[in-house]
Amino acid sequence: MACELCGEPKGELLHQDDKLRVLLVDEAGYPGFCRVIWRGHVAEMTDLDAADRAHLMDWVYRVEAALRTVMRPAKINLASLGNMVPHLHWHVIPRFADDAHFPSPIWAAPRRDGADHGRPGLAEALRAALAA
Amino acid sequence: MACELCGEPKGELLHQDDKLRVLLVDEAGYPGFCRVIWRGHVAEMTDLDAADRAHLMDWVYRVEAALRTVMRPAKINLASLGNMVPHLHWHVIPRFADDAHFPSPIWAAPRRDGADHGRPGLAEALRAALAA
Repeated sequence: MACELCGEPKGELLHQDDKLRVLLVDEAGYPGFCRVIWRGHVAEMTDLDAADRAHLMDWVYRVEAALRTVMRPAKINLASLGNMVPHLHWHVIPRFADDAHFPSPIWAAPRRDGADHGRPGLAEALRAALAA
Repeated sequence: MACELCGEPKGELLHQDDKLRVLLVDEAGYPGFCRVIWRGHVAEMTDLDAADRAHLMDWVYRVEAALRTVMRPAKINLASLGNMVPHLHWHVIPRFADDAHFPSPIWAAPRRDGADHGRPGLAEALRAALAA
C-alpha cells in the first residue's frame, strides 16, 4: 500500500530541503497547524541517527518559534504519533484558550465552537518568520 | 497557584539529574507510559536554549529506545502539550494495536477495551534498559 507521506503531502509548502518538508495544513478550526515531515519512510525518532534527529527537531523548533511570533498562541502543542501513517512527522499546533478543544488535546471531544484565529496572508507571514 | 510539576510529580522515578526527571506513570490501560519532566518552570521548547533542548530530547529518545527494547510496541507516541499544566513535559507512550484507542491518539474516544501489556518488574526492566 502506498504511504501518503512518501509522495507530495497536501498543504502549503513553507520550507523544504533534502531531508524534510514543512507544510501549513488545512485542519478545520486550527489555522497555523503545521507539519514537519521527514522525507525518508521511517517510523520512529530512534530510527534516525543523532544528526538527522537534531535536524528534524531544529525545524520543529523553528516552526514553533515562527508560530509564536506570528500568532501569539496560548500554547504550542508538539506531537509525533503516526499510528495511522507510520512515517515520521511532527504536528506543530498553535492553541488558543477559545479554540474548540482547549485545554484538551485537539484529538479529544470538542468543548465549544472554536474561535477563528486564521487570517489572510498567514502562510506568507510564517514563511517570513521562518526566514528571519 | 502551585504548579503540580514543580514539586515531586507522581510516578515511579526511572532517572533524574539536575535538569529533568523521567517517571513511569500510572495511566489506566497504558503501562509503560513515561513522562520526561523538565525541572524548571518553562512552558515551551523554544523557552530553553539549544543545549537544554538537546538534553531534554536526548532523554526522550533514551526512553523511547528503552520502551521499544522492553515492550516491543507497535508505535511510540511523543507529545508535549501542556495546555492544562504549562510546565514543559513530554509524554512517551508505547502503543499497541489492541490498546483501547489504537490507531487513534490516546486522548480520543476509546475504540475497545484495551489489552493489558503490563507486567511485573516493568520499572526495573526500563531502568536497566535506560542504563544499558
